[in-house]
Amino acid sequence: MKIWQKDKVSLKEVERFTVGRDLEFDALLAAYDVIGSMAHAKMLESIGLLTKEENQTLQTGLKQILSEIDKGDFELPEGVEDVHSRVEFLLTERFGEVGKKLHSGRSRNDQVLVDLKLYYRDGIESLVKITEELFELLIELAEKHKGDLMPGYTHTQLAMPSSFGLWFSSFAEGLVEDLNLMKVAFELANKNPLGSAAGYGSSFPLNRKMTTELLGFEKLHFNVINAQNSRGKMERTLSFALAGLSGTLNRLASDICWYMNQHFGFISFPDELTTGSSIMPHKKNPDVFELIRAKTNQIQAIPTSVSLILTNTTTGYHRDLQLLKEEIFPGIENLRDCISMSTFMLQSINVKKDILKDSFYQHLFSVEKVNELVLQGVPFRDAYREVGLAIEAGNFEVDQNKINHTHEGSIGNLGLEELKLEMDRVIESFDFQKIKEAISILTGRNS
Amino acid sequence: MKIWQKDKVSLKEVERFTVGRDLEFDALLAAYDVIGSMAHAKMLESIGLLTKEENQTLQTGLKQILSEIDKGDFELPEGVEDVHSRVEFLLTERFGEVGKKLHSGRSRNDQVLVDLKLYYRDGIESLVKITEELFELLIELAEKHKGDLMPGYTHTQLAMPSSFGLWFSSFAEGLVEDLNLMKVAFELANKNPLGSAAGYGSSFPLNRKMTTELLGFEKLHFNVINAQNSRGKMERTLSFALAGLSGTLNRLASDICWYMNQHFGFISFPDELTTGSSIMPHKKNPDVFELIRAKTNQIQAIPTSVSLILTNTTTGYHRDLQLLKEEIFPGIENLRDCISMSTFMLQSINVKKDILKDSFYQHLFSVEKVNELVLQGVPFRDAYREVGLAIEAGNFEVDQNKINHTHEGSIGNLGLEELKLEMDRVIESFDFQKIKEAISILTGRNS
Amino acid sequence: MKIWQKDKVSLKEVERFTVGRDLEFDALLAAYDVIGSMAHAKMLESIGLLTKEENQTLQTGLKQILSEIDKGDFELPEGVEDVHSRVEFLLTERFGEVGKKLHSGRSRNDQVLVDLKLYYRDGIESLVKITEELFELLIELAEKHKGDLMPGYTHTQLAMPSSFGLWFSSFAEGLVEDLNLMKVAFELANKNPLGSAAGYGSSFPLNRKMTTELLGFEKLHFNVINAQNSRGKMERTLSFALAGLSGTLNRLASDICWYMNQHFGFISFPDELTTGSSIMPHKKNPDVFELIRAKTNQIQAIPTSVSLILTNTTTGYHRDLQLLKEEIFPGIENLRDCISMSTFMLQSINVKKDILKDSFYQHLFSVEKVNELVLQGVPFRDAYREVGLAIEAGNFEVDQNKINHTHEGSIGNLGLEELKLEMDRVIESFDFQKIKEAISILTGRNS
Amino acid sequence: MKIWQKDKVSLKEVERFTVGRDLEFDALLAAYDVIGSMAHAKMLESIGLLTKEENQTLQTGLKQILSEIDKGDFELPEGVEDVHSRVEFLLTERFGEVGKKLHSGRSRNDQVLVDLKLYYRDGIESLVKITEELFELLIELAEKHKGDLMPGYTHTQLAMPSSFGLWFSSFAEGLVEDLNLMKVAFELANKNPLGSAAGYGSSFPLNRKMTTELLGFEKLHFNVINAQNSRGKMERTLSFALAGLSGTLNRLASDICWYMNQHFGFISFPDELTTGSSIMPHKKNPDVFELIRAKTNQIQAIPTSVSLILTNTTTGYHRDLQLLKEEIFPGIENLRDCISMSTFMLQSINVKKDILKDSFYQHLFSVEKVNELVLQGVPFRDAYREVGLAIEAGNFEVDQNKINHTHEGSIGNLGLEELKLEMDRVIESFDFQKIKEAISILTGRNS
Repeated sequence: MKIWQKDKVSLKEVERFTVGRDLEFDALLAAYDVIGSMAHAKMLESIGLLTKEENQTLQTGLKQILSEIDKGDFELPEGVEDVHSRVEFLLTERFGEVGKKLHSGRSRNDQVLVDLKLYYRDGIESLVKITEELFELLIELAEKHKGDLMPGYTHTQLAMPSSFGLWFSSFAEGLVEDLNLMKVAFELANKNPLGSAAGYGSSFPLNRKMTTELLGFEKLHFNVINAQNSRGKMERTLSFALAGLSGTLNRLASDICWYMNQHFGFISFPDELTTGSSIMPHKKNPDVFELIRAKTNQIQAIPTSVSLILTNTTTGYHRDLQLLKEEIFPGIENLRDCISMSTFMLQSINVKKDILKDSFYQHLFSVEKVNELVLQGVPFRDAYREVGLAIEAGNFEVDQNKINHTHEGSIGNLGLEELKLEMDRVIESFDFQKIKEAISILTGRNS
Repeated sequence: MKIWQKDKVSLKEVERFTVGRDLEFDALLAAYDVIGSMAHAKMLESIGLLTKEENQTLQTGLKQILSEIDKGDFELPEGVEDVHSRVEFLLTERFGEVGKKLHSGRSRNDQVLVDLKLYYRDGIESLVKITEELFELLIELAEKHKGDLMPGYTHTQLAMPSSFGLWFSSFAEGLVEDLNLMKVAFELANKNPLGSAAGYGSSFPLNRKMTTELLGFEKLHFNVINAQNSRGKMERTLSFALAGLSGTLNRLASDICWYMNQHFGFISFPDELTTGSSIMPHKKNPDVFELIRAKTNQIQAIPTSVSLILTNTTTGYHRDLQLLKEEIFPGIENLRDCISMSTFMLQSINVKKDILKDSFYQHLFSVEKVNELVLQGVPFRDAYREVGLAIEAGNFEVDQNKINHTHEGSIGNLGLEELKLEMDRVIESFDFQKIKEAISILTGRNS
Repeated sequence: MKIWQKDKVSLKEVERFTVGRDLEFDALLAAYDVIGSMAHAKMLESIGLLTKEENQTLQTGLKQILSEIDKGDFELPEGVEDVHSRVEFLLTERFGEVGKKLHSGRSRNDQVLVDLKLYYRDGIESLVKITEELFELLIELAEKHKGDLMPGYTHTQLAMPSSFGLWFSSFAEGLVEDLNLMKVAFELANKNPLGSAAGYGSSFPLNRKMTTELLGFEKLHFNVINAQNSRGKMERTLSFALAGLSGTLNRLASDICWYMNQHFGFISFPDELTTGSSIMPHKKNPDVFELIRAKTNQIQAIPTSVSLILTNTTTGYHRDLQLLKEEIFPGIENLRDCISMSTFMLQSINVKKDILKDSFYQHLFSVEKVNELVLQGVPFRDAYREVGLAIEAGNFEVDQNKINHTHEGSIGNLGLEELKLEMDRVIESFDFQKIKEAISILTGRNS
Repeated sequence: MKIWQKDKVSLKEVERFTVGRDLEFDALLAAYDVIGSMAHAKMLESIGLLTKEENQTLQTGLKQILSEIDKGDFELPEGVEDVHSRVEFLLTERFGEVGKKLHSGRSRNDQVLVDLKLYYRDGIESLVKITEELFELLIELAEKHKGDLMPGYTHTQLAMPSSFGLWFSSFAEGLVEDLNLMKVAFELANKNPLGSAAGYGSSFPLNRKMTTELLGFEKLHFNVINAQNSRGKMERTLSFALAGLSGTLNRLASDICWYMNQHFGFISFPDELTTGSSIMPHKKNPDVFELIRAKTNQIQAIPTSVSLILTNTTTGYHRDLQLLKEEIFPGIENLRDCISMSTFMLQSINVKKDILKDSFYQHLFSVEKVNELVLQGVPFRDAYREVGLAIEAGNFEVDQNKINHTHEGSIGNLGLEELKLEMDRVIESFDFQKIKEAISILTGRNS
């Protein structure tokens, strides 16, 4: 029997296993950790657990570290456990005992929770911003191509006339709707968990409303167990919001991959944005959109990982929660990439003109013809029969140049202004400005 | 070689396969289909596609059918394709040709979309209502048991003092937060898709804002492709909301299954609500909570099914979408059951008193003791050393009767009133009343 | 505050909730429950816990019930808890006290486990049989269409010549591979859990090898805790096998939905198998394949539900396991439907001839041309340049009628005989016959 | 309106996006790529596409590169597209034109497929090896603790006597079963895709059976489209195998986290393997097992990602497939970690003795007592009543020291030898030796 060797997996291996990718993520949390500590120190002074001088020393020291982080001068040397210990170590090294006082009335649990909430809050802001950019481009493209007809499909079969204006703006409206899920994630990120300590509160008379205000949080996670439970609920909710936006991008990318196929040939991109072959000149591989399709699928799987990690577990912190970072941090990053790449590519999209003039598409207009007759007073059933007979007899004729749709949201009435107003309303509801101001006051930093 | 027999799977089998469970779901949609048709007919009159008399006839006929549905007198006889054809058939049978005019300017696609939205809107209302009931019970239990201490765990290890008041109200606050996801699903359900026809609009001059108002919708799905895309997005978003609430219930049920275990013995239920064994008198199986745990897991898997059905597909209706009903309809029903059962069971919960007085729990209070000394002026590090030494020497003593937590959301300051205000605010934001009034005006029915 | 009413959710509701859909599934398990009891009774006699006469009485009684089940005369009347109690009740009613002796040395847990294993064993057999039928049809179609060329795509772009023979037989080989996962599920179903009692064994000297043989099981779940753990692992493994086959069917259905699109037009089906429109004569909706696509997606989501139900739970039976039936039973049924429908539809598939002769596909042959020159002795780089220049100059010419692929598994050498041998080998490895014989001996029934 | 800036996302960004993490994974594939090329070159010589000298040059060059890779001297410098181009570049740089001839009759698609299959084959071997080590430790622990009783639970309630021997060996048998899924993944990895080119074969007279033999593959992926389809099916099947093993480890870790809880206190680990607190001396956090629990949940989510990426896509290579590496490569690595850590930790497990002697557990023995009486000749119903009355009267007495279970797989008859034989049989069925020999002959390398 092969005996397991103690030296094969040493304690060092245990450390590698338990730390995992955490240092990599901690680097992203460093600034937020310092900001959270600034607010905590101020609050500790207000309840007499720090003197005025101690607090001032800490604020100075924390500002210095924040500045180092901003400049890229902050490092996590080999052997450092995590970002939190590193900050405490630097404070103590530079200012003595007072550095150790910072942790009073706080546990690693609520400290990390604050870091994560601040990080997610900013991550969501960046997603919202680039979603707005993609939205604006789609609206612009819709306006530009509102007269360019294309076929509409049902059951993957040719069905009705559609237009590029309608198609582009369908995704614009879709993005507005998707931001509502993002808003719920944002509201959760915007609730203050500080003061929940290890998940059961503290016997110190903490002023949680004060830190709520200092950190620009909208609300307090009131109940301390619930605050701890938000580790997990936050990630689940954010995973839903990421998945929702991904669903919209996935459909856009799927459409594009097919519309670029030579049988359709509806759209194209400059050669430098596709890959091809010199002996197959018509081959233009939509690699970027294939990868957007796949990446948005990976993101849509995140809710499954998060649910599996959380489910059937009981109240209270579990180390399991650490791994949620591995799911969500890259998820935010990947979605950001997918949105940016969609915008980048769509800036160069070429749309084929006059697609529907080809007789191949004639039958698409049969319903148009029927409705036209009805509006001229012919009873529906008669109009339908008349068109059906004309098609059967091979003498169906119709003007394939234009169609006359006038109702709200139709080819002839895209309502792009309404969509823009709707987007403005959603963006404003996030109130990023208020947060910026609070953080700027707390840190003295202009962000 | 066994040759496949044509008669083994006949065309009847194809019908069985394609219809699937749809008739079962259609029965749930019948009333909504009639209501949608009432609004559509009124709009058709307003744009001259129906005469005043025709519309009045249809309104009368539709009211009659609605009344039959309400009384349980509406049936889908063998051979009927779906609820939509049945309604049209009845109208035509009873009032002649006018019955067939109802479908002008409408496609099966937007008709079903309206039915689903109305159904989901009501389904969400019922979920919100019973969630509120569970919330109220949890607040009541929290108030009643705010003085009953229990241990708090981290890493599944004894960690800090907690209380039943804190525990019960943690789920109350959790439910308030969960309703925010439900709100996003509701907003999507509350957008009018009527007029999108087969997903590409219509050449009739439909008045979509009029049907929006008549049906009490908050907004219009403007872009008609996006309206069609909402088939799928609606279900995805609702599946997230169902999964979110399920996560909270799952944790509650998980806690209860363990707290009922004889090693803990923190809570119990009357014998008629558990199953046991006459020769193992202490065995009380928590079947209801085990099943809540499992059902909330099934619900948490719905986003996966929905995403798989939708992903990598292109713009336009696909028959695939039909099967989303099989995912969501039972999902709503099952979540409703889980919430109701949780409320029902918790009404009878018995909480063990004075758990923490047992010396087994003494070390839970060591942090309390340290903080107490700090508040009396002892430097933290000295206080910590003092307590550590006392524990080591075996003469650590502490009052295990009470703890003095005062900050917001802590054991001594649960803030139940704030939670209730928060819940009220969320419930009001749904504005169910406005919908009720619109539907009541449209149908003449008091709901 | 709305007070929760005791009478709103009565104990009857609790029963409805805990029983759920179990009676529906129990009806499917009835015969297997009786068969399991036959083996158990024989074993009890062998270890002296039943007399010879008692066993004979039970065997007679169980055969009678089995016969009633086979004839459809077995019912679960209102108020009956489950199929197991019903069988015991009937035996006791008909033969007195001996009916109650049947449960010695057995628990409800291992009894249900046996029922499920026997049910899954048969379910898998039926899936394997119809998979073989679909395989045979695909081989037949491949043979028939081995000379019918079609384009092959990469990146959804035209890439290389392919053939219908190659395409049909790719799925045939895929199905053979998929049965390997099914085999693993079968091996797990074919392990005897009887004797594990409540999951911790029994103090009776049970002869578990005897029941293994009587029930035609291949092996024993040795360790009794592991036998209990197989509740869950069985369903997980089977869900993988269902999902694997679903992946293959999903791709077949996806291909068909696109190849039926009018831009491709590669294949068609008789009108009675598609849905269309009289004023859009070219529209043939592939409803059956859209539903196969969606159903195979639902099945691919089953592993998620199963994993969520099982994960993070501890050793020992949990009531949660009951709900696995709701996932797996319909999953087996739905996959059976998808396979049968695929076979049914493919029997009537029409394949377009001479697709690649159209000059639209000329560039597909550029690689063929290069290779042809290489085989004639032209250095690769020169051949490539020559073809590239010809294409650029617009005078590239190639015979689009035939291609000369000769290696194993290529267009010209499909190797259908090898695939058939491989399928035979897999089917034989299941050894269904041995099971049939054991059950026939035990029950006296020819199945 | 904020205009999207071309310079914000340059073509460099597109490259970053499309390459993604591929270079990182390519480093792991380098050696396999070289080995695949060795076999391909030999085959090309055999069919006259390379001269004997050319092949010898290539074999020498490839051996040199393989040796560089083995020594860690192989690098992918900035700007290199992928490992495949790098190898070709080095060969051409060192030996001239012949380096470019290597790619005849091969496409990037089947080249990568071979690399992946070889990589997975080795990855599976390493997983099987460490699973065997864990198995052996579990068997050893079961033997050592076969006499140490512990409680068995059903419904998380105390139910029956169990033992550590039974518990340890339940996981041992579980692991044997899990390897059957791994075997299916292995068989798929062990099928040769080389010669399928871009997924539609080649007009060169490739000898695919020759490369099958040279690379130690068991079989040929016959049909070339099916070979290409195995990209995806391979990953799906392997994800099932990873998830299956993860399920078993998850349950082990879940048990341990609870058994370490102070209310149970059944097992413990040395202080250096847990984390604790100096003022809470009884707190021993099971961090390693919490992380195993979470990591096995992440792995159980991989089938969802893989299914989402693959589903609803059509025949033919898609760039989407590239991202499957991001799912599977870390999945293999993480599972390897979880297995190794389980083994490492279990080597130091301490088991509490004489748990069941405490009167707290007395009722666990009531069924034992009943059965004992039955075996002494008391009718079951009388025995049951007698024990029930004794319990009620408070004078139930039983020997809590030992129990007498004798049947196969029970506490008294663990059957560890049978389990070991079963494991041996499974391991042998993989036949890793045959592969080693083929690769050793091909490369001249001893592995």
